[in-house]
Amino acid sequence: MPANIPDNVKDLLERPIVVAFATSNPDGQPQVTPVWASLEGGQVWINSALGRRKDRNIRANPKVTVLALDPENAFHWVEIRGEVVEFDESEAALAHINKLAGIYAGNDDYYSFNPEGKGKEQRVIYKINPTKVNGM
Amino acid sequence: MPANIPDNVKDLLERPIVVAFATSNPDGQPQVTPVWASLEGGQVWINSALGRRKDRNIRANPKVTVLALDPENAFHWVEIRGEVVEFDESEAALAHINKLAGIYAGNDDYYSFNPEGKGKEQRVIYKINPTKVNGM
Repeated sequence: MPANIPDNVKDLLERPIVVAFATSNPDGQPQVTPVWASLEGGQVWINSALGRRKDRNIRANPKVTVLALDPENAFHWVEIRGEVVEFDESEAALAHINKLAGIYAGNDDYYSFNPEGKGKEQRVIYKINPTKVNGM
Repeated sequence: MPANIPDNVKDLLERPIVVAFATSNPDGQPQVTPVWASLEGGQVWINSALGRRKDRNIRANPKVTVLALDPENAFHWVEIRGEVVEFDESEAALAHINKLAGIYAGNDDYYSFNPEGKGKEQRVIYKINPTKVNGM
């Protein structure tokens, strides 16, 4: 059973807060990078590109963790530990990164921010089922 | 040889920015929590208490990672991957948490924020030697 994300922390994944996204490198070192995220039903969706370190780490070990901190309130944060249960490389992955660009950057054409990636990378949605949620 | 923390990201560890601190749970799930941090010479110091999940994780696997994001500028962040090379449980650990409380909360008496912990917990400094630094 996926864990539930309490209503009082959902805003952290709905507002344009850059989150810390942790995967594990093959040598057991956590890799933590700033990423955009969205809450979709009970899942957290992250979007990256095929073949990157993050992508390779997740395929080797789908246990990942997201930490979202309210930049205006140190006592409001959520840690979501979970498992990537689906890799979506369909057209939906492009639609999702464009949606995130709209929310986070005010322009839903992602490749206007990343012109060198256009046509050269395969976007991927990592759909995370939460297994444990901590926060306040 | 420890990696060098470039001057252009040092402010992220000198300002009162709550950082994401990642350790690995025994099952390989990243644990990521918001913590205070300080830059001390070339090391990053984190402060927690003996016996907590974080403490136990670090003793089992000293590879840890810190991500500091500028809350005002999404293009200014640093990821520091490193290894905890010393656990300091001396009086210095209390002095350090008080120093952090002063920087982050404007009051260098940590236990004024955490009265229930006073006299009941052993503070520990985790001294991290950076091995790889990414950022902008």
